[in-house]
Amino acid sequence: MKKENSTPTMKDVAREAGVALGTVSKVVNGLPVGDAYKTRVESAIQKLNYQVNSYAQGLKTNKTRTVALLIPNTQEPFYASLVYHINLALLKRKYRMLLCSTDYDCGQEQEYIAMAQQNKVDGIIGLTYNPHLIIEESTPFVAIDRSMGPKIPCVTSDNFAGGQIAAEKLADLGCKNVAFLRTGSDLNNEPNKRKAGFENGCLSRGLAYEMKIISDGEPYEEFDKFLADHIQEGKLSFDGIFCVTDALAYRVLKILRRLNQKVPEDVQVIGFDGIRYFGNQDYICSTIVQPVSEIAEMCVELLLQENMPSKPPLVCLPVTYVYGGTTSEPFDAKE
Amino acid sequence: MKKENSTPTMKDVAREAGVALGTVSKVVNGLPVGDAYKTRVESAIQKLNYQVNSYAQGLKTNKTRTVALLIPNTQEPFYASLVYHINLALLKRKYRMLLCSTDYDCGQEQEYIAMAQQNKVDGIIGLTYNPHLIIEESTPFVAIDRSMGPKIPCVTSDNFAGGQIAAEKLADLGCKNVAFLRTGSDLNNEPNKRKAGFENGCLSRGLAYEMKIISDGEPYEEFDKFLADHIQEGKLSFDGIFCVTDALAYRVLKILRRLNQKVPEDVQVIGFDGIRYFGNQDYICSTIVQPVSEIAEMCVELLLQENMPSKPPLVCLPVTYVYGGTTSEPFDAKE
Repeated sequence: MKKENSTPTMKDVAREAGVALGTVSKVVNGLPVGDAYKTRVESAIQKLNYQVNSYAQGLKTNKTRTVALLIPNTQEPFYASLVYHINLALLKRKYRMLLCSTDYDCGQEQEYIAMAQQNKVDGIIGLTYNPHLIIEESTPFVAIDRSMGPKIPCVTSDNFAGGQIAAEKLADLGCKNVAFLRTGSDLNNEPNKRKAGFENGCLSRGLAYEMKIISDGEPYEEFDKFLADHIQEGKLSFDGIFCVTDALAYRVLKILRRLNQKVPEDVQVIGFDGIRYFGNQDYICSTIVQPVSEIAEMCVELLLQENMPSKPPLVCLPVTYVYGGTTSEPFDAKE
Repeated sequence: MKKENSTPTMKDVAREAGVALGTVSKVVNGLPVGDAYKTRVESAIQKLNYQVNSYAQGLKTNKTRTVALLIPNTQEPFYASLVYHINLALLKRKYRMLLCSTDYDCGQEQEYIAMAQQNKVDGIIGLTYNPHLIIEESTPFVAIDRSMGPKIPCVTSDNFAGGQIAAEKLADLGCKNVAFLRTGSDLNNEPNKRKAGFENGCLSRGLAYEMKIISDGEPYEEFDKFLADHIQEGKLSFDGIFCVTDALAYRVLKILRRLNQKVPEDVQVIGFDGIRYFGNQDYICSTIVQPVSEIAEMCVELLLQENMPSKPPLVCLPVTYVYGGTTSEPFDAKE
């Protein structure tokens, strides 16, 4: 199949429909026009297989129907899942998505922000821990997990509630002495509230707890040492551990195996994120599941909503606990 | 920080540099111009922080510096890794990437192909098993894993060699009686060559082998049944299994656990892809690793290469075997 004819233009559509060029332009750009005209133009568009030149359209309407997504990478499963759901949410609304996953390349990220300021993209959804990024409040931007300024909406899971649920679940399952393990960015961010929520849950249920928090760049071996230091006569002094992510829980499960501690018999482990093997198979561990598809929908809704005088600065979406083999649930609660 | 002044135009740059507008245009569009002029224009661009309007530029030069990527999803780890590396390869060359991951939504995919034909994107890289997709030979397109036509380059791993390496490795590690398990698309595609390569390796090493191949949509329980049927007096008749993907190997490892078969003592398992937990932690199993970053680079190179009278129809990139805990390597071969 080869293209035989030249691509039809807006003029061809006007001629075919027997209307003025301006009428075609109005229909194409979604501006009000009489129903009869609209039908004639739409039939002509279909008959000629006319396709809007979105670059010319971009120049005229200042809209590109394109949104950029900034995300550190697509290899970590939580990010991969976010990218997928945001892509679907945009395509559903006939928007295209530019992907910018650059592992904290500030120059690249800043370039996309400049594009938004110059109306080359309609807006940006960004999950970035880049501390050097400058975003003006007038830039259409929705942040995930980390607030980028008082006028920029931030969408996140209810991380505080997630931490609290983890503590309460460990208490419900009979734990008496628990630990919280965390690694991650020191920058102010929403996931850091998991710690406060967990402490709150421990206090309200009278659970004894200890914390081990390491900063970005510090070696994970600190966790090996911390857990080994809490073994007396072959027995770990904790009977429950809450890890700030499933990725950390996965490492901790390996450490516990090396220390000859049985999971969940000797110690129960809860992670955070809701990661499954290969994206759709078993959960890595018992975990607090983030509502990824709801986060994606909310980001897109907030970004594209134009007639909202003040957008909510922080939106926290509900999380749920799910059994994933590393806790001691009664039989009927499993799967 | 608020924008105080209006965005500088090409005219402002020309005035600042003391050159004609056409000279600025040449520099911006990468056309030849005297070195002294070039330096003056570049200094003016920097001083004014002038940014090229890529939509206006797109209309003039018919180039958008944008490439679309069609991929079923970003949740499966192999796809997630491809997206990441293609994104990096494009950003390195100052190209933007439109992501279209729609789980086989043919309408969406076809729309991106129309965009390429109308020069709204410079080209497409596509991994798609969509049998209804129509791609004209004149469309700038590079396919991954499945040939989309004789004039469209296809980039893939050396799947045949991968299958052969798996068979030879199992033979080297002492296996005598092996199985090949496959699921996936019935459409002609490159990964299907893993089977032929494996058979070839078995024949050359005198390995007895059986195959179990199920089609898309058939239940995975067929593999449970196949393996259970090959147990006699508690012992599996295979001492080696090659699975067409790591995702399948993961399922097979679970089945073997249920059948009380020890891996690697009773049966050794090799997968294909090179998937790691969380993208960068341990391998799921001993596996044939696909060179994802090289595949990404090759796709981008072939797509953007304009002065190539005939592009190679099929490029196969070398794979490597890596130990991942499900084979019986001598100690010093492990990591």
